[in-house]
Amino acid sequence: MGRDNDSRRSDDSDLDMVNRDPNGLNAYLKVGFEDVLAEPDDAHSIDCVWRNSYRCYNGGKNCCYKLLTVLTGLCIALYWGCTFAIVAYNNIWCITPSMKLFKICTGVYRECCVSVTDCVCGPICRSFGLLFSRISVSNK
Amino acid sequence: MGRDNDSRRSDDSDLDMVNRDPNGLNAYLKVGFEDVLAEPDDAHSIDCVWRNSYRCYNGGKNCCYKLLTVLTGLCIALYWGCTFAIVAYNNIWCITPSMKLFKICTGVYRECCVSVTDCVCGPICRSFGLLFSRISVSNK
Amino acid sequence: MGRDNDSRRSDDSDLDMVNRDPNGLNAYLKVGFEDVLAEPDDAHSIDCVWRNSYRCYNGGKNCCYKLLTVLTGLCIALYWGCTFAIVAYNNIWCITPSMKLFKICTGVYRECCVSVTDCVCGPICRSFGLLFSRISVSNK
Amino acid sequence: MGRDNDSRRSDDSDLDMVNRDPNGLNAYLKVGFEDVLAEPDDAHSIDCVWRNSYRCYNGGKNCCYKLLTVLTGLCIALYWGCTFAIVAYNNIWCITPSMKLFKICTGVYRECCVSVTDCVCGPICRSFGLLFSRISVSNK
Amino acid sequence: MGRDNDSRRSDDSDLDMVNRDPNGLNAYLKVGFEDVLAEPDDAHSIDCVWRNSYRCYNGGKNCCYKLLTVLTGLCIALYWGCTFAIVAYNNIWCITPSMKLFKICTGVYRECCVSVTDCVCGPICRSFGLLFSRISVSNK
Amino acid sequence: MGRDNDSRRSDDSDLDMVNRDPNGLNAYLKVGFEDVLAEPDDAHSIDCVWRNSYRCYNGGKNCCYKLLTVLTGLCIALYWGCTFAIVAYNNIWCITPSMKLFKICTGVYRECCVSVTDCVCGPICRSFGLLFSRISVSNK
Amino acid sequence: MGRDNDSRRSDDSDLDMVNRDPNGLNAYLKVGFEDVLAEPDDAHSIDCVWRNSYRCYNGGKNCCYKLLTVLTGLCIALYWGCTFAIVAYNNIWCITPSMKLFKICTGVYRECCVSVTDCVCGPICRSFGLLFSRISVSNK
Amino acid sequence: MGRDNDSRRSDDSDLDMVNRDPNGLNAYLKVGFEDVLAEPDDAHSIDCVWRNSYRCYNGGKNCCYKLLTVLTGLCIALYWGCTFAIVAYNNIWCITPSMKLFKICTGVYRECCVSVTDCVCGPICRSFGLLFSRISVSNK
Amino acid sequence: MGRDNDSRRSDDSDLDMVNRDPNGLNAYLKVGFEDVLAEPDDAHSIDCVWRNSYRCYNGGKNCCYKLLTVLTGLCIALYWGCTFAIVAYNNIWCITPSMKLFKICTGVYRECCVSVTDCVCGPICRSFGLLFSRISVSNK
Amino acid sequence: MGRDNDSRRSDDSDLDMVNRDPNGLNAYLKVGFEDVLAEPDDAHSIDCVWRNSYRCYNGGKNCCYKLLTVLTGLCIALYWGCTFAIVAYNNIWCITPSMKLFKICTGVYRECCVSVTDCVCGPICRSFGLLFSRISVSNK
Amino acid sequence: MGRDNDSRRSDDSDLDMVNRDPNGLNAYLKVGFEDVLAEPDDAHSIDCVWRNSYRCYNGGKNCCYKLLTVLTGLCIALYWGCTFAIVAYNNIWCITPSMKLFKICTGVYRECCVSVTDCVCGPICRSFGLLFSRISVSNK
Repeated sequence: MGRDNDSRRSDDSDLDMVNRDPNGLNAYLKVGFEDVLAEPDDAHSIDCVWRNSYRCYNGGKNCCYKLLTVLTGLCIALYWGCTFAIVAYNNIWCITPSMKLFKICTGVYRECCVSVTDCVCGPICRSFGLLFSRISVSNK
Repeated sequence: MGRDNDSRRSDDSDLDMVNRDPNGLNAYLKVGFEDVLAEPDDAHSIDCVWRNSYRCYNGGKNCCYKLLTVLTGLCIALYWGCTFAIVAYNNIWCITPSMKLFKICTGVYRECCVSVTDCVCGPICRSFGLLFSRISVSNK
Repeated sequence: MGRDNDSRRSDDSDLDMVNRDPNGLNAYLKVGFEDVLAEPDDAHSIDCVWRNSYRCYNGGKNCCYKLLTVLTGLCIALYWGCTFAIVAYNNIWCITPSMKLFKICTGVYRECCVSVTDCVCGPICRSFGLLFSRISVSNK
Repeated sequence: MGRDNDSRRSDDSDLDMVNRDPNGLNAYLKVGFEDVLAEPDDAHSIDCVWRNSYRCYNGGKNCCYKLLTVLTGLCIALYWGCTFAIVAYNNIWCITPSMKLFKICTGVYRECCVSVTDCVCGPICRSFGLLFSRISVSNK
Repeated sequence: MGRDNDSRRSDDSDLDMVNRDPNGLNAYLKVGFEDVLAEPDDAHSIDCVWRNSYRCYNGGKNCCYKLLTVLTGLCIALYWGCTFAIVAYNNIWCITPSMKLFKICTGVYRECCVSVTDCVCGPICRSFGLLFSRISVSNK
Repeated sequence: MGRDNDSRRSDDSDLDMVNRDPNGLNAYLKVGFEDVLAEPDDAHSIDCVWRNSYRCYNGGKNCCYKLLTVLTGLCIALYWGCTFAIVAYNNIWCITPSMKLFKICTGVYRECCVSVTDCVCGPICRSFGLLFSRISVSNK
Repeated sequence: MGRDNDSRRSDDSDLDMVNRDPNGLNAYLKVGFEDVLAEPDDAHSIDCVWRNSYRCYNGGKNCCYKLLTVLTGLCIALYWGCTFAIVAYNNIWCITPSMKLFKICTGVYRECCVSVTDCVCGPICRSFGLLFSRISVSNK
Repeated sequence: MGRDNDSRRSDDSDLDMVNRDPNGLNAYLKVGFEDVLAEPDDAHSIDCVWRNSYRCYNGGKNCCYKLLTVLTGLCIALYWGCTFAIVAYNNIWCITPSMKLFKICTGVYRECCVSVTDCVCGPICRSFGLLFSRISVSNK
Repeated sequence: MGRDNDSRRSDDSDLDMVNRDPNGLNAYLKVGFEDVLAEPDDAHSIDCVWRNSYRCYNGGKNCCYKLLTVLTGLCIALYWGCTFAIVAYNNIWCITPSMKLFKICTGVYRECCVSVTDCVCGPICRSFGLLFSRISVSNK
Repeated sequence: MGRDNDSRRSDDSDLDMVNRDPNGLNAYLKVGFEDVLAEPDDAHSIDCVWRNSYRCYNGGKNCCYKLLTVLTGLCIALYWGCTFAIVAYNNIWCITPSMKLFKICTGVYRECCVSVTDCVCGPICRSFGLLFSRISVSNK
Repeated sequence: MGRDNDSRRSDDSDLDMVNRDPNGLNAYLKVGFEDVLAEPDDAHSIDCVWRNSYRCYNGGKNCCYKLLTVLTGLCIALYWGCTFAIVAYNNIWCITPSMKLFKICTGVYRECCVSVTDCVCGPICRSFGLLFSRISVSNK
């Protein structure tokens, strides 16, 4: 069943080709025409200019982006796949158990600190706390 | 369907030629006549002067703005299109995965910091917190 | 329809000649006679003096203001029209897209800062926050 | 109609000759006899002295004030009329549009500052804000 | 009617000869015998001494005060009358319009300051205000 | 009627010879025997000694006080009468009108200060006030 | 009637010989045996020793006190009688009227100070008070 | 009756021989066996040892204390009796009247201070109090 | 009856041999096996080892403690008995009366301090208290 | 029964092969494709490129991770097993009893500190607490 | 009965062999497999590797721990038994009575401190407390 799980994930039949950002990672990247260029009511250019500006912007944007992804997209995806595999391996088999060990040690040391500060700082602070022990507020 | 989506966006048949700022990006640019020149009740110029001032202002403003956009509008739109394409490519394929990696590392380091400060600073602060443990307020 | 909109605005048939400050830009300019000169009950000048003071003040004020506006009003209106056209062009085609770009970059950098400070400052502050964790107020 | 408005204001038929301070500009100028001289119960001068003091005070005050206003009132009124006309002209045609321009520029600069401080100071302050995140108040 | 008002005020038929301080200007001047000299129960002088002390005090006080007012009262009243007339003239015709002018100028300057500080200090303070954005108070 | 008022006050027929401190000026002067000497329950002297101490104290006190008042009482009363007459004259005819004049001047100066500080300090303080604009308290 | 009052006070027929401290002046002088010596339950001396300690303490205390009062009581009472008579004379005839005079002067000076500080400090403080004018507390 | 009061007090017929600390002066002196030695549940010595420890402790304590009181108790009681008699004499006849005198003087001086500070500090503080006069809290 | 009280206390018939710490003086001394050694679920030693560890621990603890008490218990109990007898004698006959004397003196000195500070610091503080006299909070 | 417990744990029949992180230790390791790469609406690459990027990423990730675990997984698991055994032994048999001993000692020392600070700091702080004993708030 | 209590405790018939940590002393020592190694959903190794990792971890852990306890467990238990016996002896017979003595002394010294600070610091603080005696809050 675990093997089926793995093979199912590398299958691309369930890849959503329209909504390509289901987790909203890059939702802040709003680069549509109306997000970049806008004319308020008191300053309108000639209709012809405005309509062609729209065409120029979208044409330039799509050409550049699609060209870049065709050239380098697959290599980058492969690179990130390998990188995250190594990171996962490192965290699972090395860092998490080390953190476990580290927490046990600091837990003991912390208990020791609590005893010392309760013994030394506690009584002094409790005495100085008497400063606030006679506040009398009379609401007239 | 994705291809249809793209081609539909670069079509300008749905471009609103009247309200050219649907997201209110430049709503702060109020440059109408009544936003710039105004006469209070106690200081009114002759009617003829005021009427012609209105004509001069609007004439000058429209000439300048339309001339400038005709000359340079299309080049600027093309420039911004390419620029935002590169920015989007950079953010999608490089910066976002790097941030993902960076967050995993700082998450581990943060857990480590929490253990140390809980162990060292925690007991001392808890002891000094006794300063406020005997506040007595008597409302007469 | 956009062209009709423009031509309609430069027409002065809808210019209100009486209330010349619809947005209250210069409402603070109260320069009427009773806003400048006033005599309390215990100090009244002779009636003749007071009546002629009223005439002098209004005569002088109207002469000066109307003369100045006749001489320079049209040139000033033309100057402001051109100036605001250039400003609008500059803001619409250059500054607003640059701000868009600038915000995308600072957004990434900000996310990076949040990770670092959450990792470094967060645990220490959370520990020092224990100072206020034992406040005991007894209302007698 | 604007012209009628102007001519109506310079007419003095609606000038109130009794209450000459309708806006209370100089209401703080109380210079009557009972506002300046007063004798308490334990120190009364002879009746004759007190009655003539009243006459002397009012006589001196009225003579001086009426003489001064007859001599200089009209010139001063004319001077203030011209001065306020120039001030109004200056504010309406020059300062108000400049302020408009100035506000557009600072608005852009302000948006830029908000991005930077949100990016740099925001995360640090938010982390230090954890200092107050564990306040525990026990009302006995 | 204004002239009648003036002439009525300089008439002394409505001068209250008994209560000479209707506005309570000098009500703090209590100089009666029982306000100055008093003997408590445990220290009483001989009756003869106390009764004659009363006579001496009142005799001395009345002689001195009445003599001084007879000699100088009228001149002083005349002097104050003229002085307050000049003050009133100065304030009505000169200082009040100047203040009006001064307020118009500072109003413009103030609007300028508001823009600058909103632009420079505003964002920084708003960011530092995040320090107080996570206060959590748990009432046990 | 004013004259009757004066003559009535210098008459001593209404002088209260028993309660000589109607306004309680010297009520703090308690010099009776039981206010000065007292023996608690555990330390009682012989009755004879205590009774004669009472006689000695009262005898000495009355002799001294009555002798001093007989010798100097009348002169002192006369002196205070003249002094307070001069003070009253000085305050009524000179200081009170001068204060009136002084208040008119500072009133104008104050209005001037208000304008300046509203213009200069106002916007800065209003900006720094943003520090407290995002306080969020969550009561668990 | 005043004379009767005086003579009645120096008579000693109403002197309370038992409760010699009606005003509780020396109530803090508790010098009885049970206020000085006491044995808790776990440390009891022999009955004979304890009973004779009681006798020794009271005998010594009474002898000493009565001897001292017989020798010096009357002189001391006479001395205090004369001293308080002089003090009373000084306060009644000299200090109280001087204080009256002093208060009249400081009253005038105070009114002057109020005007100056209202004029100078008032507007500045009122402006700085804007720091606290935008506090916004959101209770979640 | 005063004489009867004295003689009754030096009589020892009403001396409580069992509860020798009616005012609880030495209630903090708990020196019983169970207040000094105690064995918790996990550390019990042999019964014989524990029982004889109890006998040794009480025997030693009673011998020492009774011997010391027999030797020195009476002398000490006599010494304290004389000492407190002198203290009582000193306080009753000398210190209390001096304090009376001292309070009369400081009362006058205090009244003088109140006038001066009300005159000098009062107005300034009242002006600076305007700092807190515009606090606006908006509870969302 | 006092003698019966003493002899009853040194009798050991009422000594509780089981609960030897009725006041809980040494309740913090928990030295049982389960208070010192414990194995969590994931780390269990062989049953034989664990059972014999229990026997070794209890055997060693009982041997040592009983041997030490047999050797030195009685001497120590005798020593503490004598020591506390001397301490009780010292406190009852010397320190408590001295404290009584000391309190009477400081009481007089304190009353003197109160007069001086009420006279000097009181008025100044009361004046500075005006700083908080105009707080105005507007809850929107 | 303890032996059965041990042998049951080393049996792997109850090992969940699908959900391999029941305690959520590594839940922060989200390294799926949609957690790393995402395209917003305005920047879509060609469908072919996007579909093959998905395949490259998953292929690279699975290859790397599985290869690394096959090579080193067993050795690492054995290493961690031994390490945690030694840590458990050390904590159970050495550190926990030492902490027990340490707490008993600091408990005694703490009680000593409490006495000293109550004796020295307590009264001073209680006196300074009088600063807040006369707060009077008048809600108008 | 005390002897029965002792002998019952050293008997091991009531030793719980399964739950060996009834007081939860070492509950923080969680060293099971699922507390140390875990694989999230996106990173699963081959089933064979995961299953054998489980066997290696548990095998290594049990071998090491049981070997160490067999070798050294009994000696360590004996050592801790003797140590805690000596500590208990020391605290019961020496430190607790000394603390009793120490507290009696500091109690007397503390009472002395209270008198001095009440006498010296009390009046000054009470005077300075007048600073807060005129707070006036007006809720609009």
